[in-house]
Amino acid sequence: MIIIGELINTSRKAIAEAVSKKDVQYIQDIAKKQVEAGAHYVDVNAGTLVNDEIEVLPWLVKIVQDVVDIPLCIDSPNPNAIQKALEQHRGRAMINSITAEKDRLSQVLPLITEYDASIIALCMDDKVGMPDTAEQRLAIVDRLAENLKGAGVDEKDIFFDPLIKPVSVNINYGTEVLDTVAAIKEQYPDTHVTCGLSNISFGLPARQDLNQAFLVMCMTKGMDSAIINPLDDRLMSLLISTNTLLGNDRYCKEFLRFQRSKMK
Amino acid sequence: MIIIGELINTSRKAIAEAVSKKDVQYIQDIAKKQVEAGAHYVDVNAGTLVNDEIEVLPWLVKIVQDVVDIPLCIDSPNPNAIQKALEQHRGRAMINSITAEKDRLSQVLPLITEYDASIIALCMDDKVGMPDTAEQRLAIVDRLAENLKGAGVDEKDIFFDPLIKPVSVNINYGTEVLDTVAAIKEQYPDTHVTCGLSNISFGLPARQDLNQAFLVMCMTKGMDSAIINPLDDRLMSLLISTNTLLGNDRYCKEFLRFQRSKMK
Repeated sequence: MIIIGELINTSRKAIAEAVSKKDVQYIQDIAKKQVEAGAHYVDVNAGTLVNDEIEVLPWLVKIVQDVVDIPLCIDSPNPNAIQKALEQHRGRAMINSITAEKDRLSQVLPLITEYDASIIALCMDDKVGMPDTAEQRLAIVDRLAENLKGAGVDEKDIFFDPLIKPVSVNINYGTEVLDTVAAIKEQYPDTHVTCGLSNISFGLPARQDLNQAFLVMCMTKGMDSAIINPLDDRLMSLLISTNTLLGNDRYCKEFLRFQRSKMK
Repeated sequence: MIIIGELINTSRKAIAEAVSKKDVQYIQDIAKKQVEAGAHYVDVNAGTLVNDEIEVLPWLVKIVQDVVDIPLCIDSPNPNAIQKALEQHRGRAMINSITAEKDRLSQVLPLITEYDASIIALCMDDKVGMPDTAEQRLAIVDRLAENLKGAGVDEKDIFFDPLIKPVSVNINYGTEVLDTVAAIKEQYPDTHVTCGLSNISFGLPARQDLNQAFLVMCMTKGMDSAIINPLDDRLMSLLISTNTLLGNDRYCKEFLRFQRSKMK
């Protein structure tokens, strides 16, 4: 299970404040804590700072890489900001994200190959926007796979994100994503599937319970990565429990290590 | 999702004491609470009282049915105790359980048809005992289905229980059950699948997290019933969240009703 730590995002008030005050230590601390909690990538996102993103994103890359050894997930819809951040990044980064939208595809694809990055590919295009059904998502997945593989990107470096819509809007929006996850893992078994989960519960109470259940459900269908808060012990315990119950944790070693760390 | 409330079981110390003191009110209170919390059946089990089970089980049926309107799940390996309890039961009971063991099959089958009961059918026989693999379980499911349907039992009255073994013993014991659940729902779509979940976590710490994750995982594969403690709010909230996310809860009505009841 590949965990992408989502906390360094200027849409979170504490991060926006730390960025505006250039509070390096606060941001570095959040980065380190996410790694200690099990993150394999640290996401950095300065998308709310539209005018400054192009300076702030590479600055975030620098200060985070000064204290952690894992790769970063460079999270922006702006190809120029992504490029500046990639220039700063040491080692192989992950880009978050490409879509099947014509402009985004043509602008981000060269960055992936130039910087040998792995890529989060969102199920989204110009025609349908954010899709409703599994069928729509899988048609976009096929086009993304064709373009990415055509440019020389390995399946193992592609992370498809089905894009979750709220179940409060349509009761079938959960199962459409579950069906998408299963189909991607069947048709492109060497690729990964990842998700930001919280949109599933938009507009409903007890959102944590819905988000937690949906994480377990998506993992049961083959999702092998998630964009989450790794400092959420409850979510992480369910994630690690599920991974163990899926047979991915020989002798329950990872599960036992996690539980021991919580007893400290 | 069909919930079988598991709390009235003499293997629980408080129930054993209440039975020995004939504390009718305590037992009735536990029954009522389970129904209020959403149970569709109340399980009654006096299996630890080997010598007295044949008197205690029908007594439990009587005192519970004096206060609740839902059917009971008569839980015993002893066909004589089951029969005495069925004689006492008003309406259509559920029997827990039959197996593919020769003696148990021949003794319990006539009770099902005589009392028009629904039945929990355990994946267990004389040859393999409790099976390890999905393949072994499905061979037993086929024999049970043949015998039950041959005796005139409707598929909709059959609840298969795959029988869970601990993942601490073999890391594949989770996935073998998940594969079994999916195959049963594919091959016998009108039957139900139910489980007692807690055995999955035997021998490990943080058992609640493993049990909760496995409930969600089994539901994702098609399990539509569970033998659980409906007074466990955390488990129930995950169960109801999962049911909603599976598209079974139009307008999220059941989810919202549950969350409102918790705010009282």
